[in-house]
Amino acid sequence: MPLGFETPEIGETAHGRARDLWPVCRSLTGPGVRETLAYLQKILPDLQVHSVRSGTKVFDWTVPKEWHIRSARLTGPDGEVVADFVDNNLHVVGYSVGVDRELSLEELEGHLYSLPEQPDAIPYITSYYKPHWGFCVSQAARDGMKPGMYRAVIDAEHVDGVLNYADLIIPGRTEEEVLISTYVCHPSMANNELSGPVVAAAVAEWIAQQDNHYTYRFVFVPETIGAIAYVHEHLDLLRLRTVAGYVITCIGDDRSYSFLPSREDGTLSDRAGRLALNSVAPDYKTFSFLTRGSDERQYCSPGVDLPIASIMRTKYAEYPEYHTSLDDLTLVTPSGLQGGFEAVAQALAIIDNNRTWQIKRPCEPQLGARGLYPSVSTKNKAQQVRTLLNIVAYADGKLDFIDLCRTIEAPPADVLPLVQKLLEGDVLELVMF
Amino acid sequence: MPLGFETPEIGETAHGRARDLWPVCRSLTGPGVRETLAYLQKILPDLQVHSVRSGTKVFDWTVPKEWHIRSARLTGPDGEVVADFVDNNLHVVGYSVGVDRELSLEELEGHLYSLPEQPDAIPYITSYYKPHWGFCVSQAARDGMKPGMYRAVIDAEHVDGVLNYADLIIPGRTEEEVLISTYVCHPSMANNELSGPVVAAAVAEWIAQQDNHYTYRFVFVPETIGAIAYVHEHLDLLRLRTVAGYVITCIGDDRSYSFLPSREDGTLSDRAGRLALNSVAPDYKTFSFLTRGSDERQYCSPGVDLPIASIMRTKYAEYPEYHTSLDDLTLVTPSGLQGGFEAVAQALAIIDNNRTWQIKRPCEPQLGARGLYPSVSTKNKAQQVRTLLNIVAYADGKLDFIDLCRTIEAPPADVLPLVQKLLEGDVLELVMF
Amino acid sequence: MPLGFETPEIGETAHGRARDLWPVCRSLTGPGVRETLAYLQKILPDLQVHSVRSGTKVFDWTVPKEWHIRSARLTGPDGEVVADFVDNNLHVVGYSVGVDRELSLEELEGHLYSLPEQPDAIPYITSYYKPHWGFCVSQAARDGMKPGMYRAVIDAEHVDGVLNYADLIIPGRTEEEVLISTYVCHPSMANNELSGPVVAAAVAEWIAQQDNHYTYRFVFVPETIGAIAYVHEHLDLLRLRTVAGYVITCIGDDRSYSFLPSREDGTLSDRAGRLALNSVAPDYKTFSFLTRGSDERQYCSPGVDLPIASIMRTKYAEYPEYHTSLDDLTLVTPSGLQGGFEAVAQALAIIDNNRTWQIKRPCEPQLGARGLYPSVSTKNKAQQVRTLLNIVAYADGKLDFIDLCRTIEAPPADVLPLVQKLLEGDVLELVMF
Repeated sequence: MPLGFETPEIGETAHGRARDLWPVCRSLTGPGVRETLAYLQKILPDLQVHSVRSGTKVFDWTVPKEWHIRSARLTGPDGEVVADFVDNNLHVVGYSVGVDRELSLEELEGHLYSLPEQPDAIPYITSYYKPHWGFCVSQAARDGMKPGMYRAVIDAEHVDGVLNYADLIIPGRTEEEVLISTYVCHPSMANNELSGPVVAAAVAEWIAQQDNHYTYRFVFVPETIGAIAYVHEHLDLLRLRTVAGYVITCIGDDRSYSFLPSREDGTLSDRAGRLALNSVAPDYKTFSFLTRGSDERQYCSPGVDLPIASIMRTKYAEYPEYHTSLDDLTLVTPSGLQGGFEAVAQALAIIDNNRTWQIKRPCEPQLGARGLYPSVSTKNKAQQVRTLLNIVAYADGKLDFIDLCRTIEAPPADVLPLVQKLLEGDVLELVMF
Repeated sequence: MPLGFETPEIGETAHGRARDLWPVCRSLTGPGVRETLAYLQKILPDLQVHSVRSGTKVFDWTVPKEWHIRSARLTGPDGEVVADFVDNNLHVVGYSVGVDRELSLEELEGHLYSLPEQPDAIPYITSYYKPHWGFCVSQAARDGMKPGMYRAVIDAEHVDGVLNYADLIIPGRTEEEVLISTYVCHPSMANNELSGPVVAAAVAEWIAQQDNHYTYRFVFVPETIGAIAYVHEHLDLLRLRTVAGYVITCIGDDRSYSFLPSREDGTLSDRAGRLALNSVAPDYKTFSFLTRGSDERQYCSPGVDLPIASIMRTKYAEYPEYHTSLDDLTLVTPSGLQGGFEAVAQALAIIDNNRTWQIKRPCEPQLGARGLYPSVSTKNKAQQVRTLLNIVAYADGKLDFIDLCRTIEAPPADVLPLVQKLLEGDVLELVMF
Repeated sequence: MPLGFETPEIGETAHGRARDLWPVCRSLTGPGVRETLAYLQKILPDLQVHSVRSGTKVFDWTVPKEWHIRSARLTGPDGEVVADFVDNNLHVVGYSVGVDRELSLEELEGHLYSLPEQPDAIPYITSYYKPHWGFCVSQAARDGMKPGMYRAVIDAEHVDGVLNYADLIIPGRTEEEVLISTYVCHPSMANNELSGPVVAAAVAEWIAQQDNHYTYRFVFVPETIGAIAYVHEHLDLLRLRTVAGYVITCIGDDRSYSFLPSREDGTLSDRAGRLALNSVAPDYKTFSFLTRGSDERQYCSPGVDLPIASIMRTKYAEYPEYHTSLDDLTLVTPSGLQGGFEAVAQALAIIDNNRTWQIKRPCEPQLGARGLYPSVSTKNKAQQVRTLLNIVAYADGKLDFIDLCRTIEAPPADVLPLVQKLLEGDVLELVMF
């Protein structure tokens, strides 16, 4: 079955997987990433997990050490627990160095993070490239902290090890590739973390069941350093083969749909992504590449120049729960994940079918004589006949599927079956490049 | 005299001709088309009438048989005449097979056509490619039909014969051609039929009296099948020689002016047509090629790819009387036809004069020393001097006449005489390609 | 010091020079132009004054004779002085022939000029190419003239001599040139005359103190005939070397900022000029080349085709005092001149730094490790980091400085120092063409 526009229901399954992955304390490196990738391997048996040793130079960067955290607790003057890593892994500043100190409340200030404007939210804070430690608490909790001596204990260390990432290649009829990349380095947050891997996994499962034109490459990496390491290891191959692709992130809530084009816009990814979102959610928001924030920063970098766009539901930094404990699995829903999945699936179906056709003889064909008029009259008949004639009128061997749909202002899911009928009816033929 | 912007009064004459042609029962084939073409030959003695035999394959189509209708009448239970072909040839479904039957009102339903929302209008219905018969009546008449037995008599037959069309070539200084096409296959309707041939004939008469740069080809065909047959017979020649052209239809009422560009837009026809309409009727409406409906469907088809646009007054399907008995010669008026003629004539004058000029020496010329300032000061003098200087400023050997007019925002009928003065004054010269 | 965005205060100095030049009676030719150029030579010692003999053919024109005016007075029936050249040199029609006649008020009418709608303004009138004489007076004065005999005396003659102009070449590291042209042919008017030469002189002084990439050519000519003569003498050189340039006129009042692009727009001058004005005065007005009126008419003429735009404060013909005695040194102010100077200086700084850079290795650089994050946190830090990353993201070896600034929506004066830091930090490199 060639890749088409029929898509499965994946929302509940994906949400269940997100719940499974919720408690894992992910970071750039360390056991959390490995545990997450191992879980994904159970879903996608052909997923390959790779590692890059700490200290490896990757372009302008050095792969950091692994972070191993075992526990972290901040206790107050009366022994009360102010914050404990076992309650919420956001309580500890990501990549914190180990500490075991008594401090006054005043001394503690430089190691405490909260959000005055969101008093119930625990903020998500990291310090990857400057040794530091800290605790994140709700403003409500902070306001209740009385003067006195506190004890800060973080049982964590940074050890030489590896950075892990995983990829999965699903071969198509051509070696040309479509890239789907998502990240696996945030602790317990839902839209800005888990929605990405669970939707990407669902897309991979769906793609694996089809007979595809393109080869599909799924990449699960720690954000930024992982993508840089991935590009470093695969630059020539990626540049040679990648025809399109998307970063999948923040793709599980029910609010908006968002699109962020590739750096130069106008690529196959941009054209297909916009057309797909126009079908799925015509009121989707388009963001400028100037507002980029995920691994498209690496894939679209000069010298890499991959045509990678981003398909999202509500974009990172555009919703109040972003980078807080409020970004949870009530915000991300089965229907939100299903909608995100469908947007990506539509885009891939458009890309995989992006052929160019031409009519086999001049002038309009006699559709009636070929049974291409619907035999039973329906209320959509007039529109369908109009679409058939528009396909024929623009099948000039120059417009590809995407431009054809845009030109005749018809949804790709409507156009493709009609093209198929016209091919079978000896009206159209495929243009071989 | 070279083709210029001075146009004759043709409204009354054209309207008189439309009245002459009104009663003829035209269809795709048969005596009605022949009678119409014979009438046009009296106006345009060099018009050549051609024929293509029934059964001839033309691309994806087969030339249909001739339709010979002698009479048609529907009588009611009391012998009253419900509809008679002699009263209005719209009363019979176009291309109906012969019939002589008694039927109950109920049995008659599938052969009766009326318009509930336009109770006084007889609709125009055809059934060209599926054998069928029927009568068209006003909704008012239909509402008055009482139960009982009706007699339907249509004395018509389909016979092997020919499809007729006509063309007229008016040679110019070059073999490159401008194509004007209109159709002659509708029965008694005025805007959506007769306005086309009578305006096209007036344009041909005017063109024949000028000294033209281009050769002009006027084509009178039955819509769709006639245009397909014409393209089939002349494809190589049309593709080789046609530089521009228009389908002329619905060009006789007094309401709006309309433009429908060629499939790819941006051709000489599109550029000239828009500039002409901008001069004649700046508030003209532009339609998308997606709303096409006449023989531009064939001329602009992939593989034919002629640069054919449409110039209209109120476009087909955009006015309530369309395809009904209300589309008559009160709707189409002498002034309506005159306006349509002028729009087409302006477009052709623009095309025929679409040269490129350049200045003969750098910097602004001294217009005063050459008598190119108007000798008598008028209130338009300042504007005319400004236009002269603008022509000179943009006479760079790249902008053609159309782009020059658009760039300097001046009407082509104002620019051309000034260009002529500048050529005579040794300021400009013609660029030879 | 390379040409940068730091500009000196020149407003008071420039205004003082305008006051010095105010009384001189300039015209196309004659002592007034020479006196003005001699004054400019004191400021710009390397300014070269040139001359072209009367009668010389320059393209379509002939260099006119010199105009020598010594005095002019119109006296009334009672001996009262109606207008005297010593009071205001606008009182005499520019380039008037000599006269000494008694005339009735009625006979005088064809030689009197005033502005009914600006009763206190003396209009500026010339008659260069048709022998004529006349007096210009305020409407108030004219209304007070009683019937009777008037005496018109103009002691003026037209003699064979020369047309003068001056130029100044400030060499840069390349022979490619930027042209700044202004005019020196109007009598006592401020915005539409003196603002041009005094701002151009200040720009030249500033440029002369920098280490420039381009060579700068400053041209001071009588308008129209002077520019035509200049183009005639230097056409091949100007076409070979000129990469950008501006006509500087009407650049000293405090109202608006105006931009008039070159004929084809999109040149380096247009891109830099718009970017500069966008920084200096985002609400600046853009005019069409169809509203041109100064020496860009010659520089942009087909066959000359220099990329010359105009940077102005309030454009000629767009302010009520234009071409009257009200265009004086209260209308033109030190701050107005300073603003005009800055707009031009910004445009030149943009042009002189319009290089193209590319990143030295793929993916984002680690800015922190290189000290490219500001060491002290300021409120602008986030924006500066964002701009740094945007520079890097678009440093693809294709976008030049101008396109880079426009793409990342950052002011050129902010971007250039950051580019410098990135060059020093081994992140960027200059693309050699």
